[in-house]
This record gives sequence, structure tokens and C-alpha cells, in this order.
Amino acid sequence: MAAPLPTTQQEMRRRNLARVLHAVADGGPLSRAAVAARIGLTRTAVSTLVDELLGIGLLVELGPGRSGAVGRPGTALALSNRGPCGIGAEIGVDHLAVCAVDLRGKVRTRTAVDAANRDSDPAPVLRQLAGLVAETADEVRGLGLRPAGLAVAVPGLVARGTTTVVRAPNLGWTDLDLAPHLTPDALGLAPGTGCAVDNEANLGALAELWLGGHTPPPEDFVHVSAEIGIGAAIVVGGELLRGTRGFAGELGHVPVRPEGRPCACGGIGCLEQYAGEEAVLRAAGLDPRATAAHHPGPGARVGLLAARAERGDRAVLTALGEAGTALGTALTGTVNLLDPQTVVLGGALARLAPWLLPSLERELDRRIAGPPPVAVSRLGADGPLLGAAHSVVRSVLDDPLAHRA
Amino acid sequence: MAAPLPTTQQEMRRRNLARVLHAVADGGPLSRAAVAARIGLTRTAVSTLVDELLGIGLLVELGPGRSGAVGRPGTALALSNRGPCGIGAEIGVDHLAVCAVDLRGKVRTRTAVDAANRDSDPAPVLRQLAGLVAETADEVRGLGLRPAGLAVAVPGLVARGTTTVVRAPNLGWTDLDLAPHLTPDALGLAPGTGCAVDNEANLGALAELWLGGHTPPPEDFVHVSAEIGIGAAIVVGGELLRGTRGFAGELGHVPVRPEGRPCACGGIGCLEQYAGEEAVLRAAGLDPRATAAHHPGPGARVGLLAARAERGDRAVLTALGEAGTALGTALTGTVNLLDPQTVVLGGALARLAPWLLPSLERELDRRIAGPPPVAVSRLGADGPLLGAAHSVVRSVLDDPLAHRA
Repeated sequence: MAAPLPTTQQEMRRRNLARVLHAVADGGPLSRAAVAARIGLTRTAVSTLVDELLGIGLLVELGPGRSGAVGRPGTALALSNRGPCGIGAEIGVDHLAVCAVDLRGKVRTRTAVDAANRDSDPAPVLRQLAGLVAETADEVRGLGLRPAGLAVAVPGLVARGTTTVVRAPNLGWTDLDLAPHLTPDALGLAPGTGCAVDNEANLGALAELWLGGHTPPPEDFVHVSAEIGIGAAIVVGGELLRGTRGFAGELGHVPVRPEGRPCACGGIGCLEQYAGEEAVLRAAGLDPRATAAHHPGPGARVGLLAARAERGDRAVLTALGEAGTALGTALTGTVNLLDPQTVVLGGALARLAPWLLPSLERELDRRIAGPPPVAVSRLGADGPLLGAAHSVVRSVLDDPLAHRA
Repeated sequence: MAAPLPTTQQEMRRRNLARVLHAVADGGPLSRAAVAARIGLTRTAVSTLVDELLGIGLLVELGPGRSGAVGRPGTALALSNRGPCGIGAEIGVDHLAVCAVDLRGKVRTRTAVDAANRDSDPAPVLRQLAGLVAETADEVRGLGLRPAGLAVAVPGLVARGTTTVVRAPNLGWTDLDLAPHLTPDALGLAPGTGCAVDNEANLGALAELWLGGHTPPPEDFVHVSAEIGIGAAIVVGGELLRGTRGFAGELGHVPVRPEGRPCACGGIGCLEQYAGEEAVLRAAGLDPRATAAHHPGPGARVGLLAARAERGDRAVLTALGEAGTALGTALTGTVNLLDPQTVVLGGALARLAPWLLPSLERELDRRIAGPPPVAVSRLGADGPLLGAAHSVVRSVLDDPLAHRA
């Protein structure tokens, strides 16, 4: 999981360029002297690196700052808000969304449309998505930005290091490489612009790591999210644990009632059968298909459940309480295996947290001496889309020379 | 989890010294040219590094090799078998063991004594262990070796980055710092010699990684072992996943019968209650305490179970089959969360594998589409002790300058 270790002067320079950018990203605006102090290099070395980053348009000078150094006043350095930007996209079961984020981490444009992607033909869905990306790219170019890449969040398993969706049960997609549908040409992006595809739970967890507002960010946590299914992602030492094939984090298929209900995955008594959206709707006396027909669109059923829970609907409260207990059982195993610093409820679960948390925490307390705290994400359903766009921005900061104009 | 990134010339040199040593450790004996080819540095750079390592006695020259280079014939380089060595120790519930391993990975001496460490007073146990270490140190000094450090395997939770045993239920030890008992003076080691303490399951997994005979070694695996309890360790990207507090890998406390038997940990239906040594003995109709009294010593009860299973004892076969099923249920959750390349049965489980594997694999097949293969460790019960000694050797290879005589 570690970044390749630099062993030559050239690699060391690339590494140090990235360290300067990250220092400014984390603490900026900063003077050259402040950057040098943060990363432990000499001011001379930092000045050379900064000049290179100014030259390729990733850093800008904001004018004299308040450096206490003797001599020439320190000039504050900031990341450029007119350089490269990251484009994030999300394929949901019932929506498509695209956004662009600049190097400073600011969302510059964002668009979302309702869609009926359940059991869909991939080609028109991806054509529509490509169109939205192309519009976004046009828009940000008008703001003086340059799309550096696209990352797409999908509700399914993505083969590690590829753009292939191995299985997205709710979309009905299997062994589908998205790359041929999302070429730079189809996306209206410059030739050679990269396109990455990742599981939405992974990108949601990365968003939590980068944007969750934790100081310091937790190094080791389990991020549990939901759209239709239950997803999770595991962060260890500040990095995603992806698994050999890229399929790690399948919390939804941890057995919680080992001889319980059969699951669509082929397993038995999986968490998803007790805490997934359909299971909760059914436990609350609602027909999942009919409810989905009456309440289409992203977050609509979760909104319905939240509204009923707020009104004190006893069936919904009981259903959410049971889902919380099932989550607690699955997380007991997870905590014993991974010893995380914290568990974060994100995505749709964040909105339902008031009714899930009491039984979830009761279950952890009943089974574990000193369980970790359970936190609720502030990003909610925005996590995967923001994580996608930010992952592109991070790739620019991590290797600035690869993203020269 | 990544090693600190070198950012100065000095750090880069230390890193490259380590890379030369690891290249020779992995592929040696090697000529300078072969080392240069393996690590991608120039031959001139490698020669300077090699001269330094010869000077501090970590490498030796074996005489002219068969290098095809023009000019001076390549001299084969090997790790020294008279330089630093690692000392490993193991505190078992019913034994103590110590061994020494040289830089070439060869066990040079080894000693083990039966002991009654269950619910013991730590001071005399650690005094006895220190005495065994001191004897081992004397012996290896007679072989021209220099003990570079000690690592101790314990059957319990060790606080990450410390020498404190937080909880070793079978020893009856709680919040005990071993360092004051294992000073260089008490151990007969040179002042300043380091002493590390780690969980036996962690060290067993590292032994599997380093010595398991896999080519290439698996980067991502779950290593399941047992002495009295059930332990596991998770290796991701070739590194141990330790968890925030150092408590990761507690597979024995994953719930497999969520409303089943109460566990000593305070949990309910934990794997250990269905697949731990006591549970298996009880399921086979044997009284755990009486059996332990009649069959004391390391591996004795496991040996009894294996002997009876070999003879076709129906009660034992049924008990082991049920234990295998319980292991399969717990591993289903583990595989869904971590997506490992393989699962390895080690420690006492390796010996019982013929009778555990069929039901374990049946359970995985019943619950997971395409489960990972389950392998059996060749190291068996030797893993933790070898892992301890090798961890010291690895620390010398990783930072040779810190271990100069």
C-alpha cells in the first residue's frame, strides 16, 4: 500500500514537489519559509521547488504575506484556482451526478439528474453521463480551469486498478469495462485525460478522510454507507484497504443471522437482508417495489423513512431499531478484526442515524468491552461524488509533473 | 503503515543500504553487478554501498563468482553469518522457548522448556525466560554472533508500539509492561539492546510471510492460528494490519452464533466458544481441565485430538467438523470485509487441518461465490518463535546503520 520509495534524485524531486503542494493544500496560504519549516527542507531547496510549481501554474503568489523573516518579505503561496481541476461523477440507481473541484478543494460546478438506472442497458446510461461530463468540462473551461481527469463512483464491485465493474447488482451490470464508453472524445476532454472508476463506498470513505472535518483526520476507521445496498470501506493508516481483487469492505454480506434469510449474493443471513433499504421497508410494512415507484429518485425512500420516524411511526421505528442491531452485530466482528479508531456512518445511514444509533451502540456495548465511538458523517449522501472529484485533485497534488498543461 | 519517506541524501543512503541487504537476503549470493541490476542503481553507487556494508560486517565476500562482466571478476556477496543475530522468545501457556537466527535466516540455537504459566505470577516466569535468553546469548557469542535484539511472542493483546501486555487471558496477565523484567542486564545482552513484545498470532503471520515458502509471498492474507485461544493476523500489502490500539485480528471474538454461548471476553456467541481448544475438547466429550492435567505441555491436547481423529474417534471427528464450520462462518465475514488472496491455517490449526478443512471449506462455499483458497502453514506451531527472531533480523536489514557493532 505504500507509495513507491524514491531512490534517485529525480524521483526525490518529484516527491518533494508533491510535499510542497500538500503543505500548501493543508496549511495554505503559506510563505516559502513556512513551507520549508513544515516539510523539513532548506528554504533554498523549497524556493527551487516553488519556482517550478509557479512555472507550471499549480501554485500562485498572493502578494506579500506576514512572514517574520528578515529580508525580503515572505510572499504567500496558494494553490491555483485556475489550474487543473478534478471532475467527479456518480452513477446511482436513480440518479446521475457530476461535479468539478479546483485545486483548492472548492466545488466549482455541480449537476445532477434523476434517472431510472435499475436493471438498465449500460450504453445509454453512460452516454448520458458522458454528456453531463462534457457540459461540466465546457463550463469549467469557461472559468479558466483545465479538467485533469475524471473519477466515476459506481454502486458495485470494481476490479482493483481497472475501470471494470465486475458486479453492480442494482444496476444489473456485470463485467462491464466503462473505459470504452468514457473516452476523452466522448467526454469532451483533452486527449490522454485519465478516467478512473471506483466503488461508491470507497470514494465516500476517502471523502470522509479528506473532507470530513476531523482534526486530525482519523488514520484507521470503518466507513459504513448505504444507497440501496449496504457498503463499507476500511481506511488503515490513512489509506483505503482495497483487498486483493478490489472487493474489500463488503460489510453487507457479513453473516449476522447465520441460518437466517437467503441473500441475493448466494449467502445466508447477510447484513443486507436485515439493514438494507428493502429489508427496512419490508420490516416497516411497506412494499419495496411499490414504495420505489411512488418515491423515485435519490434519497426518496430514505427521506420517507426519516419523515415517518420523525412523526413517531412505530413500525418504522421498530424496523430502524432492528436494522441498527443488525449493523451492530456485523460491526462487532469488524471491530474485533480491525480495531479501528472509529466507525463512521455515512451516505443514507447518516440521515437515519438518530434512529439507528441507539440500538447499534447497545449491540456493540453488549458484545465488546470498550467499543470504538460511532460518528455520523457530515457529508452524507454527497460523499461519493465529492470523493471522486477530490481523488483527481489528490492525484495532481501527488504527482504534479504528470499533470502539466 | 508506510515507511517514512526519505527526503534527504542521508535518508536516501540509509534506504539504499537496506535495499542492498534485502537484495542479497532475497537472492544471494550475488555479485555487485547483480545487486545493481536487481535494485536499479548504478554499479558505482552499489559498490560504495557494498563497501560500507562490508566495513560494518553485515556483508561478506565469498570469493570470485561467475559474473559475466568484463574486467575484474564479480565477487559473490552474502550476508554475514558471524555478524548480528536476532533472538526470539515465546511465552506459551505451558512452555517457554528461545531461539537465535543469523542474518542468513538460519536457526543457530534453540531451547524450550515445559512450564505451567496459566494464571501465573509474571515475575518468576519472566525471570526464567530472561535466564534462557542469557544462555542463548552466551551460546551465540561463542559462535561469533552478536545479539542485535530480542522479540518476545505472547498469547495476548499487546498495546501497539509498546512492550505492555494489556490482556493475556490464559496467562492471567493484565496491563503488564514486560520491559522492566527484560532489561539488557537481566538478559545478559549489551547495554542498549532493544526488546520488543508482540502478539503470537502477529508474529506467526509474519513468519508465514517471510518463511512460509510461498513464491511470490502473498501480499494479502489472513493467518488463523491457535494455541489455547483462537488468534488471527491480517497481512495487507505485505504488512501487518495492527489496528489503532494494536488489537486487530481478534477473529476468536467474531460472533458466529449471535445469540449463543456467553464468552469470557464479555461477548456472546464468539468463535472461540465453538472452535477454541476448550470448546472442541468439551464437544468431544472430554473435560478440558482434566485433559490438560493428564496431557500437559505445548501441543499435547492438540496431539491427543489429532491421534483420536486419526483413529476415527467419532466424537472427536464431529467436534472438529463443527469447529471447522464455526471457523468458516467467522471467515465468511472476514473474507467479505478484507478480500484476502488466501486464508492460511497455522499454529495448532495446521496440525488439525485434515479434519477442520472439509467443513470449513463447505461453509465458505455455501456463503461466498468464489471464496479464496485455504492453505495450511508448513511452519505450524513454530511460527511465532521464528517470527520473533526473524523480526529482529529484518530490523537489522531495514536499518543497518542502527545496528553497527
